[in-house]
Amino acid sequence: MTADLSRTDRTRLRRSHERGHFDRETLYGILDAMPLCHVGYNIDGKPVVMPTCQWRQGDHVYWHGSSASRGLRAAEKMDVCLTVTLMDGLVLARSGMHHSANFRSAMIYGVARKIEDTDEKVASLEAFVEGLTPGRWDTLRPINAQEIKATTVLSMPIDEASAKIRTGGPKDDEEDYALPIWAGVVPITMTIGEPEADPRNLPGLEVPADAKAVKIG
Amino acid sequence: MTADLSRTDRTRLRRSHERGHFDRETLYGILDAMPLCHVGYNIDGKPVVMPTCQWRQGDHVYWHGSSASRGLRAAEKMDVCLTVTLMDGLVLARSGMHHSANFRSAMIYGVARKIEDTDEKVASLEAFVEGLTPGRWDTLRPINAQEIKATTVLSMPIDEASAKIRTGGPKDDEEDYALPIWAGVVPITMTIGEPEADPRNLPGLEVPADAKAVKIG
Repeated sequence: MTADLSRTDRTRLRRSHERGHFDRETLYGILDAMPLCHVGYNIDGKPVVMPTCQWRQGDHVYWHGSSASRGLRAAEKMDVCLTVTLMDGLVLARSGMHHSANFRSAMIYGVARKIEDTDEKVASLEAFVEGLTPGRWDTLRPINAQEIKATTVLSMPIDEASAKIRTGGPKDDEEDYALPIWAGVVPITMTIGEPEADPRNLPGLEVPADAKAVKIG
Repeated sequence: MTADLSRTDRTRLRRSHERGHFDRETLYGILDAMPLCHVGYNIDGKPVVMPTCQWRQGDHVYWHGSSASRGLRAAEKMDVCLTVTLMDGLVLARSGMHHSANFRSAMIYGVARKIEDTDEKVASLEAFVEGLTPGRWDTLRPINAQEIKATTVLSMPIDEASAKIRTGGPKDDEEDYALPIWAGVVPITMTIGEPEADPRNLPGLEVPADAKAVKIG
């Protein structure tokens, strides 16, 4: 594991410092738990936040999309911010002020690089599929040249980044603990359901281990 | 319900047009299903994507935070993009190319307005708490002047906005349906757990209806 994350003015936490984490293990744990991310681009000088899937290979984060995507075209060699958040619960306090949410979030700032090398691009897409559904890539109809061309993969080093985590119950004003108000946490989890077969699957095909191996949350 | 959403160059879908929705009912359904949002700000000319909770009152979307938040300070009277996304499943296709995700997302562009009027600010915070935990606000220790001052509430009209939804199974290349590859959907849902009481609750307090009423997803 390489050096700790860079602390800059952007990644510095201004409030609730106890929630900040600057070690790679914590940050990687959040990225690996949740493929959904939101990427912020500047398009014509205005912010655009697009949902997409991210995956991690070593100390880089990746995302992809159609080569025609305006976000992906805007991202190349431009500053972006990629954020991953899991909401783990609602925190119900004794005052409105101290209501909160339990969450894990990771923010990565950087400049995106478009992967031009075909082998590197295919390897990254394989890593994406294998990360979610281990063992699946080699069972698929192989990717072809036209598909590779139509897909843009972007990559960014995980360096200027931070994680923020809130866990546990409400933190009320000391005098409010004497009030007869129920306080606590309503937990939220992501549930992975049973794989649903495509009606056009050939007869006799069983659910493969890759589809059963999905873990998110 | 007011007029349909504004179609602009930013909200126009360039690809997968069948996934786009421009009616308020669909957009509001997504906002109301998921408090977690990601707001994109331009800070010093660079994009920053911050996770926070949003809530809707009529045809406006709201979010809030500490009055010291750099995002909230940057947002006032500036262009922002607020995006809400629910990931509903992984779509496993017969080729890597057609792997996808089922999702519902809403993107709202606009200029944020800071709510200065105290009554309007308190009413909006009440709407936030009531939206997630109906009936809770009036049971809480009332908000005080210092808390109101320390909280910034931003609001934005829902006008330049669009929803995007993908549902269903994989859409493979026609010739790939003949291949003996299992395809289908791995569903993802958000599960609301049993409320967990704060150990410092006074004896005899039962879980209130508001905590049992949380619905997300």
